[in-house]
Amino acid sequence: MASETKPVLHGYFRSSCSWRVRIAFALKGIEYDHVPVNLIKDGGQQLTEQYKKLNPMLQVPAVELDGITLSQSLAVIQYIDETRPGPRLLPADPKQRAQVRMISDIIASGIQPLQNLYVIQKIGAEKVQWAQHFIDRGFQALEPILKQTAGKYCVGDEISMADICLVPQVYNAERFKVDVGQYPTIKRLNQTLLEIEAFIVTNPSGQPDTPVDQRA
Amino acid sequence: MASETKPVLHGYFRSSCSWRVRIAFALKGIEYDHVPVNLIKDGGQQLTEQYKKLNPMLQVPAVELDGITLSQSLAVIQYIDETRPGPRLLPADPKQRAQVRMISDIIASGIQPLQNLYVIQKIGAEKVQWAQHFIDRGFQALEPILKQTAGKYCVGDEISMADICLVPQVYNAERFKVDVGQYPTIKRLNQTLLEIEAFIVTNPSGQPDTPVDQRA
Repeated sequence: MASETKPVLHGYFRSSCSWRVRIAFALKGIEYDHVPVNLIKDGGQQLTEQYKKLNPMLQVPAVELDGITLSQSLAVIQYIDETRPGPRLLPADPKQRAQVRMISDIIASGIQPLQNLYVIQKIGAEKVQWAQHFIDRGFQALEPILKQTAGKYCVGDEISMADICLVPQVYNAERFKVDVGQYPTIKRLNQTLLEIEAFIVTNPSGQPDTPVDQRA
Repeated sequence: MASETKPVLHGYFRSSCSWRVRIAFALKGIEYDHVPVNLIKDGGQQLTEQYKKLNPMLQVPAVELDGITLSQSLAVIQYIDETRPGPRLLPADPKQRAQVRMISDIIASGIQPLQNLYVIQKIGAEKVQWAQHFIDRGFQALEPILKQTAGKYCVGDEISMADICLVPQVYNAERFKVDVGQYPTIKRLNQTLLEIEAFIVTNPSGQPDTPVDQRA
């Protein structure tokens, strides 16, 4: 495609939504430039007027590619799936595609937004319990759904956008001390996925902007 | 398609995510059966063991169709778009599709979850200010994005999933007394869309489960 350019990912090593995009790029074998946006330093670099032009939601990631700027990780993932070669990130079968989107949205709309930095900052002292509550609530729903849809991966035996969403959400759950062992299907899928190259090289513990004391 | 069946929508008249699905069905001209799930009555009919089997997230909507059960409104909308004839709900151009998904996800992941019933119930006394804060925050981001992408509708001149998400979110904003007049593009798009048949017939004010005192 003539309009293809090397994407620029504005992201943060520990942001689960940035991690989703990194995994998708890795699975597709897409090289990109990385511009770190530190959500903590300087009171939050995502709050500057300059960043606001890239993503008025003041969140990471924002991705510049093919002459447009996209925020919202699932929009980015589906765009690269529709415009780039490489393994499919959504299955060919419409029912399986729907299940992939359902699982992705349970995480992206039903769990992650409620434990997002700007939300828990507003909660204050109770923030850990708040985050645990909503992650547990979501995992209690995901577990029986995944039990039905999963093969080797979240939906059948091919890696999809659902897997791309699952692993960073489990990472967040562990940061908030949620006992993931209560959810055997989630735990099993996460362990399987963590051994795959695209998930390993994109792990928050080894990104260009990962602080030295948080490197694996 | 041989496996097509008349869908069953489990929804609630005032739920913005149920309304999204109703609009999509109406735009596509799809008939469906409606099973009301009253989120208030009996302590919340979405919390029963019976409903939990349909949607373990204990939310509306849940849609039974073609032998599967889908929750998450955007997964439902994209599934019917991919399997049913009628006007496209996502544009053919990949960049415009990405913009439609970005706008839809700003609403579905960035705004709606934070003013959802089960979240504001947990907030308690401050719930109106909480909801206003997150709706305003989201609309401040949506306004400049829509200014760039909109033609007659949210993205260009064709109705899309972004419009399907926008109108129910503006309805929620008005319920929470957000001054939508601050956002001229959002206000203009909403007014235009509210005059379209598929948005009129699906309005919360005139559904089978709308209480008599809330009918238009």
